[in-house]
Amino acid sequence: MKPLNPASIRAPFARYSHGAEVPAGQRLVFCSGQLGIAADGTIPEGVREQADLCFANIAAILGEAGMALKDIVRINAYVTDRAHMKGYMESRDAHVGTPPPASTLMIVSGFTLPEFKVEIEVVAAAPEKRRKPSRTVTAPKF
Amino acid sequence: MKPLNPASIRAPFARYSHGAEVPAGQRLVFCSGQLGIAADGTIPEGVREQADLCFANIAAILGEAGMALKDIVRINAYVTDRAHMKGYMESRDAHVGTPPPASTLMIVSGFTLPEFKVEIEVVAAAPEKRRKPSRTVTAPKF
Amino acid sequence: MKPLNPASIRAPFARYSHGAEVPAGQRLVFCSGQLGIAADGTIPEGVREQADLCFANIAAILGEAGMALKDIVRINAYVTDRAHMKGYMESRDAHVGTPPPASTLMIVSGFTLPEFKVEIEVVAAAPEKRRKPSRTVTAPKF
Repeated sequence: MKPLNPASIRAPFARYSHGAEVPAGQRLVFCSGQLGIAADGTIPEGVREQADLCFANIAAILGEAGMALKDIVRINAYVTDRAHMKGYMESRDAHVGTPPPASTLMIVSGFTLPEFKVEIEVVAAAPEKRRKPSRTVTAPKF
Repeated sequence: MKPLNPASIRAPFARYSHGAEVPAGQRLVFCSGQLGIAADGTIPEGVREQADLCFANIAAILGEAGMALKDIVRINAYVTDRAHMKGYMESRDAHVGTPPPASTLMIVSGFTLPEFKVEIEVVAAAPEKRRKPSRTVTAPKF
Repeated sequence: MKPLNPASIRAPFARYSHGAEVPAGQRLVFCSGQLGIAADGTIPEGVREQADLCFANIAAILGEAGMALKDIVRINAYVTDRAHMKGYMESRDAHVGTPPPASTLMIVSGFTLPEFKVEIEVVAAAPEKRRKPSRTVTAPKF
């Protein structure tokens, strides 16, 4: 991913890039919007904790494709109140790679359960399957 | 499309995948958000009927590219009230392929006309143009 | 980008295509949602002026990748009130290429600052780096 930040326009408000270019020939991963729910079904109260869970889920999903948070191209985040932006942004800044991805943030009316304060959805891209380091078997000497 | 559903995180709430991987070298289709309006301009009252129309429209659009609903990679759906989620989800579950695509759902304030209760937008992907089966002409036997 | 507009469904409400197909092997650019803020930090009152600034920003971002507004595949636009749709649509119609990209429009509750009335986010695609025309040096005649 190549960040696009033209000098002629206002710099990003926070830790994100104005655009992200994906070279031809890369794999793409489209993730479902993630919500702040743990594997055991618990939903933390705070938006920061919810966002952290979202990013942990996203990391797990990308991991299934041999990708990681640093491969995110764009984050679309939705919060249910302006007051939740700060907690979300702290979590985002702690989780994105360098250079940071493109990012869109807005306030919406709600998600699948009223308890959720934030939903985070990403697109990621990476070159063809990175090969796992091959295990070298040294032939025994005779 | 390869579904990504890590065992370590909470399973999807419904019939969708946590992520969808598009291999390198595929065509992509980005659809406009579809609304529940028929070719004759009528807008059904129910959200299920509106969502069914959205998916019918999406199938027609994808068809222009030689793709079908099973090629959807991610669905982004927006409803104007939590009460509309059920009808939308029933329609989605009836229309998506197996494995199901990634999916994001949220409540927003409205669309281009107040009558619309749901808007559905998809990204789809498929290999280079599938060739139509060539018509085989059997030479007559003499 | 190839527009997808099946004859069997209702024609687009305005200047956009129902779908846009990206051939295999193209570069993609994902832009951050742009807001109506000038390089000097001023935010115009009107939604049309805000949307014009968004498109100017988007043109600058795409320019960093050797792309232009005509390479937009899909626009996702969000306004905070139905009354803002008209001004946004006038700006969109003035800025998109021919054929026009896919487009999704909805009303949401707000953006990073209460002054913002519209947010515009795009995906664009183009073939591998277009080469700049090489400067031809004519050998001096002796």
